[in-house]
Amino acid sequence: MTSASSSDNPLDEFSLIRRYFHHQPHHAGQGDSVSMGPGDDAAILIPPPGQQLVMTQDTSLEGRHFPADMAAADVGYRCLAVNLSDLAAMGACPLWFLLSLTLPEVDEDWLAGFSHGMFELADAAGIALVGGDITRGPLAVSIQATGAVPAGQALRRSGARAGERICLGGVTGAGLHGLHLWQQGRRDGPAIDHFRRPQPQLELGQSLRKRASACIDISDGVLADLNHVLDASGGLGAQLDEAALPLDAAILSDCDHQEQRRLQLQGGDDYVLLFTLATDEPIPAGCHVIGHIEEAPGIRLKTMAGEIRSLSAKGWQHF
Amino acid sequence: MTSASSSDNPLDEFSLIRRYFHHQPHHAGQGDSVSMGPGDDAAILIPPPGQQLVMTQDTSLEGRHFPADMAAADVGYRCLAVNLSDLAAMGACPLWFLLSLTLPEVDEDWLAGFSHGMFELADAAGIALVGGDITRGPLAVSIQATGAVPAGQALRRSGARAGERICLGGVTGAGLHGLHLWQQGRRDGPAIDHFRRPQPQLELGQSLRKRASACIDISDGVLADLNHVLDASGGLGAQLDEAALPLDAAILSDCDHQEQRRLQLQGGDDYVLLFTLATDEPIPAGCHVIGHIEEAPGIRLKTMAGEIRSLSAKGWQHF
Repeated sequence: MTSASSSDNPLDEFSLIRRYFHHQPHHAGQGDSVSMGPGDDAAILIPPPGQQLVMTQDTSLEGRHFPADMAAADVGYRCLAVNLSDLAAMGACPLWFLLSLTLPEVDEDWLAGFSHGMFELADAAGIALVGGDITRGPLAVSIQATGAVPAGQALRRSGARAGERICLGGVTGAGLHGLHLWQQGRRDGPAIDHFRRPQPQLELGQSLRKRASACIDISDGVLADLNHVLDASGGLGAQLDEAALPLDAAILSDCDHQEQRRLQLQGGDDYVLLFTLATDEPIPAGCHVIGHIEEAPGIRLKTMAGEIRSLSAKGWQHF
Repeated sequence: MTSASSSDNPLDEFSLIRRYFHHQPHHAGQGDSVSMGPGDDAAILIPPPGQQLVMTQDTSLEGRHFPADMAAADVGYRCLAVNLSDLAAMGACPLWFLLSLTLPEVDEDWLAGFSHGMFELADAAGIALVGGDITRGPLAVSIQATGAVPAGQALRRSGARAGERICLGGVTGAGLHGLHLWQQGRRDGPAIDHFRRPQPQLELGQSLRKRASACIDISDGVLADLNHVLDASGGLGAQLDEAALPLDAAILSDCDHQEQRRLQLQGGDDYVLLFTLATDEPIPAGCHVIGHIEEAPGIRLKTMAGEIRSLSAKGWQHF
């Protein structure tokens, strides 16, 4: 890791990095591709032969992407999870990440918690921290993550075709509902857990290589993210089946029917995969067919009553 | 590029990205390694065969790493330059970068200027923007840059040996002096130019592969960065020759002798390379031998009068 500026070192950046971010990976094989990690001007890395690389970067700001009173370990977990979910959506295996951490002050308890939560997920996912920096300012976490995929096999948003099935890797709505409950003062329960620690679907993404025609992760909500797929696939449309939308009643039990639908279709921050499959592809275990791709642009919902209603791509509020 | 959250889109992130950050590289060969740039969950990249990758990430905050009243084009140029300088210090050829931009509001003039300045340097350096995100918050620019180097040839901080010469790729002191002048209201002149638009020494770094035993870029000042090399090389020491310190009198003309020395030895943000060379290696054109590595730990200065004085690794103030 490198220092941004000599006048920027009241934190003693170097000792903080040594204390909290020099981490021995706990994962078989992890780190074999790291010739040199933090400590020089840059990391030196060995890309796996015959693979393409997949790169993403996401910044999370306190008060905007996570609440100011979220436990540091959850902040560390969540900020990495958001980036890993992008790798999952590409079908990639995680390799390396860099962390730019902006802190208002040196709070060693916070740093210990943050790094503990982050490395818990990093170890589980087999991704190694290889560099970054620490600066002083409003709390922000910017992570750049790199994964690998066999050449030509990365999943994209652009391959959906009319007639294909639209699938979800899990239930949606829990992330946004968890945020709502958090804002109401709740600190536990399954929706809160989804919100604090989203589970990037890395194994599912990898299993979809050469099978799914398009894939995206649900960060903006089913309607908005499905719309990204339809746009990227040449302006196609879709019909969703209300009766087929997966619902975890235990998670959304305190919502009325209308709010459940809104969360399922518009709730972001779920980080489950949405993907399209040709009709002869088997549905992966734990996944749900929620509709199909159509030639006609726009998204339609077949209601419980069998009626076909147009949905705005912008979301449920126009339904 | 990906959106961080559905509730985070008052900027209309996607159209801003399309308008200001979908850029056709103006560099022969640039972009050949980009299978897919911005627009999906992640970029898809083809690493050059037989090369290792070098990765760095640096965040620049308004008011901390650049002044609030610096022109947007200079902010874009400078924030990328700082990262390219880390690639230069490793001897790497630039390949790709990702940009996380945090903006307090959508100011299209500012965005146009920022992207213009950033792409001016990106095109000159042959590096392609492949992804990132835009979020709303206090102005911050987090860039992750990747370069390539033939396997085993990356320059490190750790290879210096006693007896070797210590070299600088250019004059130092101009970056910090430029900041001082800026704070006094000056907006032009050679020191201001160094400060606004540092020149990463990419060609010099590449030419030092298999020649320099250690290399670093001057971000913290000569004493602090030389100390990083000495530490990484097993606790060696160094003697610097005051008479040999390169001075651009035109740049530091308005400083007294003592302040000139302080800027030369402690001024950060110069982004020239400091490297060590065995005695039989020719000195690259434009570079300056400023001293030599010694077995005894610590940094010493041979003054103009021939006296040997100890310098604190922390810097000039203890001299």
